[in-house]
Amino acid sequence: MKHPSPACVADDDLALLTDLYELTMLQAYWWEGMHERGVFSLYFRKLPEPRNFMLACGQQYVAELATRLRFPPASLQRLADIDLFDDGFLTWLENFRFSGDIWVVPEGTPVFPNEPLMEVEAPIAEAQLLESLVLNQVQLETVLASKVVRLVMAAEGRPVIDFGMRRMHGMDAAIRGVRAYRTAGLAGTSNVLGGLIHDLPLRGTMAHSYVLAHDDERDAFRQFARFYPGTTLLVDTHDTLAAVRKVIDLMAEEPSLKVGAIRLDSGDLGALARDSRRLLDEAGHQDVKIVASSGLDEHNIAELVKTAAPIDAFGVGTSMGVSQDAPVIDLSYKLVEYAGKPRMKHSPGKINLPGRKQIYRRRDTQGYYSGDLIALRDEAIDAGEPLLTPLVTQGQIDEATLAEADRARKRVQQILPHLPPAVRSLHPADPAYPVELSEGLKRLQRQQ
Amino acid sequence: MKHPSPACVADDDLALLTDLYELTMLQAYWWEGMHERGVFSLYFRKLPEPRNFMLACGQQYVAELATRLRFPPASLQRLADIDLFDDGFLTWLENFRFSGDIWVVPEGTPVFPNEPLMEVEAPIAEAQLLESLVLNQVQLETVLASKVVRLVMAAEGRPVIDFGMRRMHGMDAAIRGVRAYRTAGLAGTSNVLGGLIHDLPLRGTMAHSYVLAHDDERDAFRQFARFYPGTTLLVDTHDTLAAVRKVIDLMAEEPSLKVGAIRLDSGDLGALARDSRRLLDEAGHQDVKIVASSGLDEHNIAELVKTAAPIDAFGVGTSMGVSQDAPVIDLSYKLVEYAGKPRMKHSPGKINLPGRKQIYRRRDTQGYYSGDLIALRDEAIDAGEPLLTPLVTQGQIDEATLAEADRARKRVQQILPHLPPAVRSLHPADPAYPVELSEGLKRLQRQQ
Repeated sequence: MKHPSPACVADDDLALLTDLYELTMLQAYWWEGMHERGVFSLYFRKLPEPRNFMLACGQQYVAELATRLRFPPASLQRLADIDLFDDGFLTWLENFRFSGDIWVVPEGTPVFPNEPLMEVEAPIAEAQLLESLVLNQVQLETVLASKVVRLVMAAEGRPVIDFGMRRMHGMDAAIRGVRAYRTAGLAGTSNVLGGLIHDLPLRGTMAHSYVLAHDDERDAFRQFARFYPGTTLLVDTHDTLAAVRKVIDLMAEEPSLKVGAIRLDSGDLGALARDSRRLLDEAGHQDVKIVASSGLDEHNIAELVKTAAPIDAFGVGTSMGVSQDAPVIDLSYKLVEYAGKPRMKHSPGKINLPGRKQIYRRRDTQGYYSGDLIALRDEAIDAGEPLLTPLVTQGQIDEATLAEADRARKRVQQILPHLPPAVRSLHPADPAYPVELSEGLKRLQRQQ
Repeated sequence: MKHPSPACVADDDLALLTDLYELTMLQAYWWEGMHERGVFSLYFRKLPEPRNFMLACGQQYVAELATRLRFPPASLQRLADIDLFDDGFLTWLENFRFSGDIWVVPEGTPVFPNEPLMEVEAPIAEAQLLESLVLNQVQLETVLASKVVRLVMAAEGRPVIDFGMRRMHGMDAAIRGVRAYRTAGLAGTSNVLGGLIHDLPLRGTMAHSYVLAHDDERDAFRQFARFYPGTTLLVDTHDTLAAVRKVIDLMAEEPSLKVGAIRLDSGDLGALARDSRRLLDEAGHQDVKIVASSGLDEHNIAELVKTAAPIDAFGVGTSMGVSQDAPVIDLSYKLVEYAGKPRMKHSPGKINLPGRKQIYRRRDTQGYYSGDLIALRDEAIDAGEPLLTPLVTQGQIDEATLAEADRARKRVQQILPHLPPAVRSLHPADPAYPVELSEGLKRLQRQQ
């Protein structure tokens, strides 16, 4: 074991973050002289049960990583030590640059089963090499964004804040999660590094430990509010309503003290919010807000909103940090064309779609999305908005489109109102959003 | 947004991978002159429903990170830009070194509710700062190891291989997951970088894309087996048993061809394994092994083992990569003592344990673990093996104990047979493994 272990992955090691078979297949392609272009399509076959759509996220990020993949000398040495690769192939790796094309649906686009989130076309070895990294990275952000957008919808405009770093699977998830959260519409994050890197406002309150370290809860509140005017005080360490009264007393004793909010973190959040609101209002503190956390997910947020609980913001950790009810999506990265010929695996009972594709999204007269058509990319279709656009061309990333990734958050806000209400609902949509195959695609499928 | 984004976290940025409130609390402690020692205890209150025990993992790794946490100039500048921290405090951070003590249960130890996996004692700010990172990192490995050990037990000695990088939550999970997998007893991993860093043998087969890129499946098999003598051939791209026959024909045509195994990746794995075994045996290929993958978890592995399916090794991805049935554990890092005084939050219906603690694990006359006692650390107890041992003392890590982390895998193998059969079972243990509180601890608890 290398010691001390690196915290995560340095850029120089990134090309080795792959499955061994990618590299042995690459060497086989190279030995066989199979340098013709392959097209790989990234999609999922089935929605996780509790989801009506997935929010595609991470594909622009990983496309950018793909253009930067290199095998520096240290990586080549590590591969040489495995004793599977010959010098000629290692020299080929030394000169590796991704030289192909990558089409993506823009980040923040709702996607449905069998729709390609990404298509990669390149000399087959180059496109093959991306598989493991693309799957790992797109799954991470897509799974998280698809959960979080549900909480954002449930909160109906009230801010939802990420408190989840401690529940996420490691460092990369914690940081890249914030990127997905920003796209999905969270208002802030407690995660300092994640928020700084991915430009989401930092938010923080206090922990029980701070209150417990003081012999008197009142002292803890007084000190923290003096230090951080407008801060949020955590009121459930001993007795929530007693603590709210202490906050009110402190504000009476020391009128210059500015308390921005109180935070409820246990118990019946709806009832405690109502009682706290009443106490605060009676004391003339209509401006002190109420933040709730503790075991929140989209369902109890929706219930609190429906019952008009006077909660101004929600802090969420556990349910969101790993997308607890659907932590995984069965993404595939499949070869659909090689050397100009369509390719297709035959899987009993499963849909496989050969060839380069495009997705067309249609709207009805009210502006709602009414259904998608998956077609061959070169088929003449005049039915809705095409979703896949080129992001990487001959190994060069389109910087304008990449910068546009930053507009993914706005895209989500614009798109959500156009999803049919049943699809936007937290409950299973029945029937599911319609996705059809074009005549050209069905014909090609039958020919395989 | 910083662009290009870093792949993950550089050592220099690690101290910023924390929740904002840790830093604002630290500054408050510093402003208040609260420099006395605090003790924090890391534990969980409840087992996830499908688990009878958790395998503690990651605590030695993160303790080592804690001793290396620093705030270099770039981090301090980022904090200065947030506009919450004053120069005096930033100077204190500049000189930050963890100077305290960390006790841990050894990695690979089964743990139960309310048992401390780790206790951190230091000037309160130093111990507080570790909270978010410790929770994030210990959860990651503990959740993954606790899932994987179940698959290892179910396989009853047959090798289980990690194919799950693509289903894990990001890069850190993929790499650190391999560390947890090694501890839990996996035989190998497909993840190149993870396996190289954490010293687990690399394993790989081939993807459907390799077969599909060839016009003839037989060519794909022939080439791959020529290139990689003893390799594993994936036989389910078109028709599994037809492909097994092709492999047999190839070996007849070209007797020098060495095929190590075939891999089944869809369909009824038990039936296909039996039919494939028969075909291979009839052709005299008793030495060609059968690897199965596709939707495996501990329950269907147990079923395949029970029905004596002739499968020599299992490749697992989705169910394992995120610990799909229990992706999260509600770990707490709670202040239990400050300035020599025990501290305890009052949570209706929840157990909170003040003070520095020790766990004693008892055995019955047959050698099975018969129950644990959680006691105060300085209580005189003569009842079983104490589990918590010092790993970091006055900021210095015990290199001998750290190196011993590499023996965690062996520890798991030694310990598992001593767990009572009901606890080792894949089904819920009823009654649960008994964990009691010492008289001293109960007395202290009542006094809070």
